Amino acid sequence: MKPQLACFERLGWPGWKALDEVCEAARGAGLLVVADGKRGDVPVTAKAYGQAMVGETQTAFGAVSGLDADAFTANPLLGADALEPLVAAAEATGSGVFALVRTSNRGAADVQDLETSEGPVHERLAGLVAGFSDRLAGADSRLSGMGAVVGATAPEHIARLRELMPRAIFLIPGVGAQGGRPEDLGAAFRPGRAAAMIAASRSISGADDPGQAAEDLRQAVWEVSG
Amino acid sequence: MKPQLACFERLGWPGWKALDEVCEAARGAGLLVVADGKRGDVPVTAKAYGQAMVGETQTAFGAVSGLDADAFTANPLLGADALEPLVAAAEATGSGVFALVRTSNRGAADVQDLETSEGPVHERLAGLVAGFSDRLAGADSRLSGMGAVVGATAPEHIARLRELMPRAIFLIPGVGAQGGRPEDLGAAFRPGRAAAMIAASRSISGADDPGQAAEDLRQAVWEVSG
Repeated sequence: MKPQLACFERLGWPGWKALDEVCEAARGAGLLVVADGKRGDVPVTAKAYGQAMVGETQTAFGAVSGLDADAFTANPLLGADALEPLVAAAEATGSGVFALVRTSNRGAADVQDLETSEGPVHERLAGLVAGFSDRLAGADSRLSGMGAVVGATAPEHIARLRELMPRAIFLIPGVGAQGGRPEDLGAAFRPGRAAAMIAASRSISGADDPGQAAEDLRQAVWEVSG
Repeated sequence: MKPQLACFERLGWPGWKALDEVCEAARGAGLLVVADGKRGDVPVTAKAYGQAMVGETQTAFGAVSGLDADAFTANPLLGADALEPLVAAAEATGSGVFALVRTSNRGAADVQDLETSEGPVHERLAGLVAGFSDRLAGADSRLSGMGAVVGATAPEHIARLRELMPRAIFLIPGVGAQGGRPEDLGAAFRPGRAAAMIAASRSISGADDPGQAAEDLRQAVWEVSG
């Protein structure tokens, strides 16, 4: 399950309380929780975000747990030193981090596709991600919990990004409502089916028959990832 | 007052409740509130962040207010279409937005200083900000509430960024604990004293005499901004 933190946050503290309850219910049902808040800040504040997403905070009244998510999304615009405390929080708790590398919205091109002397900005972001790969190595050592958000709406970048981040798990939004198609995503599923996760929400929740829409998508992903 | 949302968020929903109370107390004392959460997401989710920071959300139980901040910080990595709903939320409520342009941490250089064919990434971010300037024009029409976060730790960029964003209010972190000095920030204070805000926290809260530290900083800023 990938809750959009914004949709709870806009309801104020009762929304955050609901978010806690939703996450707990999801864990009870055996689902993984990817807290999608795209957090990012200077190091001292990034540390607090790490505590909020997967860690805990010592207070005068004892330790307070954060969301206890299995993984969370992060914004890498502030660079390696700002990602560091987030990765450290994930490392300490066995969680995962997905840094934005190439998002699925149209405006992603404005900044993430700017050309630098060593490739577009999104490839430089991929380099940052790859630099943290060893830190969050999974039980399957071919893969790392230091992952990347790579949108399905610009599939032409996926093969190159996989090359730059051979061990990152790709979290792939943009399938369905935003126009991305599973059949274009084959390169993401290397070195194996566990190497990518397709996130779809509106195309399922808004379908006439959500169960069928989810099953159809699962089938399409299964075929391309085999 | 510039609350770091991370420091409340890590305490879960009681933290968000405390944040509400702190913001309300600050407003009661006549202080402006800049919600420093550095939010950014794809357009549909960015709209929810706008509701969370300065707007309200319609629910089956009536309208729910967000933080009701006077301004908030935003991360522009996702481009213009992702900034758009945040700017629209600010426009609708007479609030301000400060987009990250050149942050004060060391790692800022990793991404924000990458060179593109038309200048470093932070100048391209400045271009995005300037594009929204007319939307949030203040009563003083020389200035716009579409502002920019520009760190004091790389003052060599400030004059150029002021040129690219002539109407943006600069929110300037990095003075004090991070090493930035008021005397290097003169260019930020054009076209007038209202054109920049210095954010200092640890250098004041951690001082032996916080009141004196704040007064000393105020004096130093007053001299350079005149």
